[in-house]
Amino acid sequence: MIDVRSDTVTRPTPEMRKAGYHVEVGDDVYGEDMSVIKLEETAARMLGKEAALFVTSGTQGNQIAALTHCDRGDEVLLEADAHLFLYEGAAMSALAGVQPRTIQGVRGVMNPEHVRAAVRPDNIHFPETGMICIENSHNKAGGAIVPLENMQAIHDIAREHGIPVHLDGARLFNASVASGVSVKDYAAQTDTVQFCLSKGLGAPVGSIISGSAEFIRKARKWRKRLGGGLRQVGVIAEPGYVALTTMVDRLAEDHEHAALMAEAFEQIPGLSLEGSIDTNIVIVNVAGLSMSSDHFVEELTKAGVLAGTFGPDTVRFVTHYDVNRNDIKQVIDRVNELARVRS
Amino acid sequence: MIDVRSDTVTRPTPEMRKAGYHVEVGDDVYGEDMSVIKLEETAARMLGKEAALFVTSGTQGNQIAALTHCDRGDEVLLEADAHLFLYEGAAMSALAGVQPRTIQGVRGVMNPEHVRAAVRPDNIHFPETGMICIENSHNKAGGAIVPLENMQAIHDIAREHGIPVHLDGARLFNASVASGVSVKDYAAQTDTVQFCLSKGLGAPVGSIISGSAEFIRKARKWRKRLGGGLRQVGVIAEPGYVALTTMVDRLAEDHEHAALMAEAFEQIPGLSLEGSIDTNIVIVNVAGLSMSSDHFVEELTKAGVLAGTFGPDTVRFVTHYDVNRNDIKQVIDRVNELARVRS
Amino acid sequence: MIDVRSDTVTRPTPEMRKAGYHVEVGDDVYGEDMSVIKLEETAARMLGKEAALFVTSGTQGNQIAALTHCDRGDEVLLEADAHLFLYEGAAMSALAGVQPRTIQGVRGVMNPEHVRAAVRPDNIHFPETGMICIENSHNKAGGAIVPLENMQAIHDIAREHGIPVHLDGARLFNASVASGVSVKDYAAQTDTVQFCLSKGLGAPVGSIISGSAEFIRKARKWRKRLGGGLRQVGVIAEPGYVALTTMVDRLAEDHEHAALMAEAFEQIPGLSLEGSIDTNIVIVNVAGLSMSSDHFVEELTKAGVLAGTFGPDTVRFVTHYDVNRNDIKQVIDRVNELARVRS
Amino acid sequence: MIDVRSDTVTRPTPEMRKAGYHVEVGDDVYGEDMSVIKLEETAARMLGKEAALFVTSGTQGNQIAALTHCDRGDEVLLEADAHLFLYEGAAMSALAGVQPRTIQGVRGVMNPEHVRAAVRPDNIHFPETGMICIENSHNKAGGAIVPLENMQAIHDIAREHGIPVHLDGARLFNASVASGVSVKDYAAQTDTVQFCLSKGLGAPVGSIISGSAEFIRKARKWRKRLGGGLRQVGVIAEPGYVALTTMVDRLAEDHEHAALMAEAFEQIPGLSLEGSIDTNIVIVNVAGLSMSSDHFVEELTKAGVLAGTFGPDTVRFVTHYDVNRNDIKQVIDRVNELARVRS
Repeated sequence: MIDVRSDTVTRPTPEMRKAGYHVEVGDDVYGEDMSVIKLEETAARMLGKEAALFVTSGTQGNQIAALTHCDRGDEVLLEADAHLFLYEGAAMSALAGVQPRTIQGVRGVMNPEHVRAAVRPDNIHFPETGMICIENSHNKAGGAIVPLENMQAIHDIAREHGIPVHLDGARLFNASVASGVSVKDYAAQTDTVQFCLSKGLGAPVGSIISGSAEFIRKARKWRKRLGGGLRQVGVIAEPGYVALTTMVDRLAEDHEHAALMAEAFEQIPGLSLEGSIDTNIVIVNVAGLSMSSDHFVEELTKAGVLAGTFGPDTVRFVTHYDVNRNDIKQVIDRVNELARVRS
Repeated sequence: MIDVRSDTVTRPTPEMRKAGYHVEVGDDVYGEDMSVIKLEETAARMLGKEAALFVTSGTQGNQIAALTHCDRGDEVLLEADAHLFLYEGAAMSALAGVQPRTIQGVRGVMNPEHVRAAVRPDNIHFPETGMICIENSHNKAGGAIVPLENMQAIHDIAREHGIPVHLDGARLFNASVASGVSVKDYAAQTDTVQFCLSKGLGAPVGSIISGSAEFIRKARKWRKRLGGGLRQVGVIAEPGYVALTTMVDRLAEDHEHAALMAEAFEQIPGLSLEGSIDTNIVIVNVAGLSMSSDHFVEELTKAGVLAGTFGPDTVRFVTHYDVNRNDIKQVIDRVNELARVRS
Repeated sequence: MIDVRSDTVTRPTPEMRKAGYHVEVGDDVYGEDMSVIKLEETAARMLGKEAALFVTSGTQGNQIAALTHCDRGDEVLLEADAHLFLYEGAAMSALAGVQPRTIQGVRGVMNPEHVRAAVRPDNIHFPETGMICIENSHNKAGGAIVPLENMQAIHDIAREHGIPVHLDGARLFNASVASGVSVKDYAAQTDTVQFCLSKGLGAPVGSIISGSAEFIRKARKWRKRLGGGLRQVGVIAEPGYVALTTMVDRLAEDHEHAALMAEAFEQIPGLSLEGSIDTNIVIVNVAGLSMSSDHFVEELTKAGVLAGTFGPDTVRFVTHYDVNRNDIKQVIDRVNELARVRS
Repeated sequence: MIDVRSDTVTRPTPEMRKAGYHVEVGDDVYGEDMSVIKLEETAARMLGKEAALFVTSGTQGNQIAALTHCDRGDEVLLEADAHLFLYEGAAMSALAGVQPRTIQGVRGVMNPEHVRAAVRPDNIHFPETGMICIENSHNKAGGAIVPLENMQAIHDIAREHGIPVHLDGARLFNASVASGVSVKDYAAQTDTVQFCLSKGLGAPVGSIISGSAEFIRKARKWRKRLGGGLRQVGVIAEPGYVALTTMVDRLAEDHEHAALMAEAFEQIPGLSLEGSIDTNIVIVNVAGLSMSSDHFVEELTKAGVLAGTFGPDTVRFVTHYDVNRNDIKQVIDRVNELARVRS
């Protein structure tokens, strides 16, 4: 089976496994796991922030951002298809007691003027605006990159009003490698950043949340409350360190693979791409084959390729470390055959 | 001064004042205020529901609906300009821990197919859909009436999925009087209804939340937690009873007054109506006068008329019991003069 | 029937009714009800605070204190039998997301050293201490007065640690009249105070929360979220003003009546007082009559006296404006007869 | 350094490391990590429950229990020194919106009659009792074992009232090995159980929450919201499996070591034990040496032994896999020397 459902399925590399095997661990609740400290310091340095914190998932990092930045009853501005809004079980409202206010973007990119208009003025009927969240690259928009200038414009508005900006950078390194903009430059337009060590970077478990030292001090307590304060965390932090320090550049390969697939899919009658391909995600509309996405995925599975249902008519393919150029060719062949049969 | 900012400014009538003066009261926390019991039973009967509960405001009624219907982490579907979303300080997320998911309607009316598409399927990443809220008449849409058939279509979808429907009927009686549809018929398309005794009906304080006996039993405890469990509540419940039983039919007059204003405003160069006039609210765009709404309102105040800023370019006029036909004529004259000076 | 279940059953006096009848009202959400402004300013002045806010109940005032003073995840220190802990439906945890930590007091009075020991040091495992709450007079402890020196000692500890002190003074005026300590002196040992206009002062509805101007500014938004932002509130605020300005001194009479009852009960074989009588509450243990409190209350009801079950063996009698000296004598007679029959 | 601060400092054994190194992993969010499924099924079988779920910490397991069992505004009964109350940052109130109500136990054991008395009757002022929590062995009480009969008696009361019982069994296997009562027998007196794979069992990271299939289905979504839904979790689940299947019996050794220490400490003038030694925790009062616990711990550290401050006068020693009989003798010697110097 070739698995292109998501880059989350990437398995740890031998080097990561070895790193986890040999690592000297300590109890991180006592601050004594040197491995996680090294990882956190490295991550903070790469992002140009004062401090960073290892968390067990991107969701945990995003939730901690909301819990730490916002008061109960605040409003959070974010794009209408943001992961934080669509895919985190309404946790932000359940745990932090804040209200999301969505802004319809174009391929995941919010118009800064819409953001400005959504900031609440002072009024007894209105919540305060407690956080603005940007997702880059944007999953639901097909791995779309949010341009640096857009982030800058939103950051300017946020600073005017004293509102913190959080970057859901679950796939920030994909955006960075594809755009040539450093993660530090992206991070400079935000107060806090979350990125995943799993997904494209290939670590088995874990994400990083980063920001000011004061923010991280508070975030650490919220992590404990969520049950994310671990003991001998080095067994996952050390593989995470390998991921962060050796796996970034190779993301370019995933992007090439995605472009390759997209090019091929474009030629197939009955298929159409949903937007252009910025990074490692390809979203294809299969309506032209008179199939539902569920049916398409089912048939493709029989042919040995796992893809993901994304909407009633759309299917998502995600490239990652565990699929090579040959696998990609096979995916293209299988999709070709399936489409031919249907037309 | 003629005050057409809102129907919330209506003062209690002499009859209401007398009713509050003479009422025999009891301690409602002990269930011994006969006056509030009479009001609640009357309201339930009018709506065709099993039970009803007096609350101190429309906001309290709406919040109790969310707290009683929903679990922490649920999602609530509602129109993008709903009062519950825009004007209640994000209380629904702060108190009930639920996430609003807005659906852009047309003049406050949600497309049932959009509602259907927004109901969440069963998935580990998704919240459950805990409530659908309809606002009728719709304040932000200029007092627009949501048609009974639309409510029915949404109710059908809700029942298919076992989701309760809540009606924010702060101005339900305006919708009913204007459309000729009984409040009972509207209420039949919902599980719970909130309507205001203040606003158009003229009571000084209070709203009603109504639903099944079991719902009201739970709602009563949430009301206590919010601090809405009152003692000798008869002093406001009895005026509320007068409002509910004697003030409904006369809303037709407010609607005539609004129509009168709208007709006149339409003729004034530089002014344009925002949508048609269904009930007692008139929203006018003043951009054609090269004035901000704030400036327009300020100038009109100097001329003895209080209107309300609604958006950067829009001004709201609301008719109610305390402005008569003569007042309406004066409002029209003042607006006319102001527009003439500006053009 | 003579009703001594609670002082909450007090009915508004003719003067209060007249005040509510004639009052000129405005819309308080717009800040235009002069009557409630007068009441709030008067209350703040009496307490020596910068500002005050009318709320619909003591519970609402206490909840607003927690919501305004505390962050999610804070801990609140309060006496083990505090109203805020026992009788408010766990609202403080449900709404404000804070954890109560109870301290067992003696007749409602916490040992300051116990308070000091309960303040949390800085540690990743610990919540921060967000508020200390004192109840005076203390309902569950039989209307016991918390001495000024005790409040002072606790206030000193609180200030050392930068923790706000809230006074649940639902019956603060009873404590003040009985002890001779002014409410201003009590309030000086706190950051915020809640007291009831209903109960002993006899207003039909309402309480006051008071504190710094900045606190009240924030509290106003939380009141709106709870649904406590009212419209023509003057109809209850004006009776509240009468209560606050004319009914305080007469509380001494209620205290005399309570003492009278207590003295008489002490002589009755089979009855024993639970603690001394500081204010207007008398708690009697009826175990010596081989009756449950429920049974005792039931029998007494048949004899024309309504008292309240307080615990399995204890019954509560509360004096108030609507029971005069003659009523008190009757209560004593009825209890006497009931006890004689049982022994 | 000999580290007896806590059993949380235990490092993974070579076998665990190997297991994590070689494990075949999958994406657990898709339910495809066979290793964690094996671990969960094994844990459920051992406890006699329908299902189990891997979580990243004991705190996460306890919080998920509260979130899944309770509604907002419920009350949770638990012992006054419970970990869930003292050491989890008030998370239960912050996240689940529930109020803890503590019951003072004797060495961590609640009197069932006190539990019964604390269950709330039906009343508008009262929260519902949403969960009863028992901690076994009880950390703060010095690793004390809660007898099976006590759990049974509390379970009976809980069932009478339809209240779920949750067992915080962070160190349940210590209780089981020391008492000879199987974990299955303990678990039979509860609805849900949380136990740690780290601590005495030695896994680097992780805990298990177990209960009915329906409970676990809901718990899984709450775990996702807290950010505990992991990807290639096998790298920690497989070491956890080794811990669960090979490390239980050897806990007896830790208990012997604790008994050895306790015996020795008892002979040392100036030291006194706080309660008897049931499992692997020894709490010693050092007041007789005229030292604060902080000072004692500091001096002992200089001598090469890490112990933990527990209270102003008490110090905690915890035995575990990484300290052998020889280490224990050294600890005793060092404490002896320190005490001799002081007296």
